Amino acid sequence: MTIILGIDPGSRKTGFGLVETDGAGTRYLSSGVVKLPVDQSLALRLKVLAESLNQIICEYKPTLAVIEQVFMAKSADSALKLGQARGAAMVVCSLAGLDVHEYATRQIKQAVVGTGGASKAQVQHMVTRLLKLPSTPQEDASDALAAALCHISGDGVRRATGAQTFATGRLK
Amino acid sequence: MTIILGIDPGSRKTGFGLVETDGAGTRYLSSGVVKLPVDQSLALRLKVLAESLNQIICEYKPTLAVIEQVFMAKSADSALKLGQARGAAMVVCSLAGLDVHEYATRQIKQAVVGTGGASKAQVQHMVTRLLKLPSTPQEDASDALAAALCHISGDGVRRATGAQTFATGRLK
Repeated sequence: MTIILGIDPGSRKTGFGLVETDGAGTRYLSSGVVKLPVDQSLALRLKVLAESLNQIICEYKPTLAVIEQVFMAKSADSALKLGQARGAAMVVCSLAGLDVHEYATRQIKQAVVGTGGASKAQVQHMVTRLLKLPSTPQEDASDALAAALCHISGDGVRRATGAQTFATGRLK
Repeated sequence: MTIILGIDPGSRKTGFGLVETDGAGTRYLSSGVVKLPVDQSLALRLKVLAESLNQIICEYKPTLAVIEQVFMAKSADSALKLGQARGAAMVVCSLAGLDVHEYATRQIKQAVVGTGGASKAQVQHMVTRLLKLPSTPQEDASDALAAALCHISGDGVRRATGAQTFATGRLK
């Protein structure tokens, strides 16, 4: 059984999503959004993020973590802010002994929706459907779950389990 | 006695510098550069940074950490890379219970050299002189020491110790 922690980091809120797979099937475990206290210093905001992720790692004991790769940011300022949250999240996972896998946004959308140019709403829709969720998760949580699902669609879990979870680029 | 850990984060190497002050005087403790393994994944590079900082914190037990503020990056790409190292370094300090103070580059240069537009070489020269070092530290280590010295020149330590360590904006 492989438990995958998907993370969608941001300077104001960070989405997370946990799924488990045995190669034959995928099961939703948990997801949510960590809100960073905007009225605190950057160091304390990142501490809240780190402590929340540590708690999640402690509770669900994921096998590995998946995080979206960033190729283009809107501006240097937003890239710096995103980078800080991303670096904090990655180092927490890495220090906890998790391998951290990175996938490009297009790869994630391709794996989950079937097209690299899919909208956020389409990702939310497909994540909800693929994981048979009773309601649509928040956007950041949905993006985190999509990152986790992308890893399952790829070689990583297939190699590990010897199973074929994908037929034509989408979860069965 | 206050022990200050200055950090100059970067995606390839991160400088650190430790000074201690009792309000009346300032003493150099240590400095150096953590080189991040360029042939490893980002997560593993950040792990090396985090483990090195944790070791330094463990050995010197600093009272607080100081890190340069970033206002303008050259590009979104370099801002993202810098942000990731910065976020990782800050979260390590924050998780270790250290207050993390941020100062603008101009403030640091003003405090150490006497002018906000000072060159890196001038900062190196003054850091070497102020701390009576037998040789000039590497640029990143020097920048980290300068950040630590900037904090001493400010209100932080003066308030804490009731002493006046600076006369005219420079270390006496």
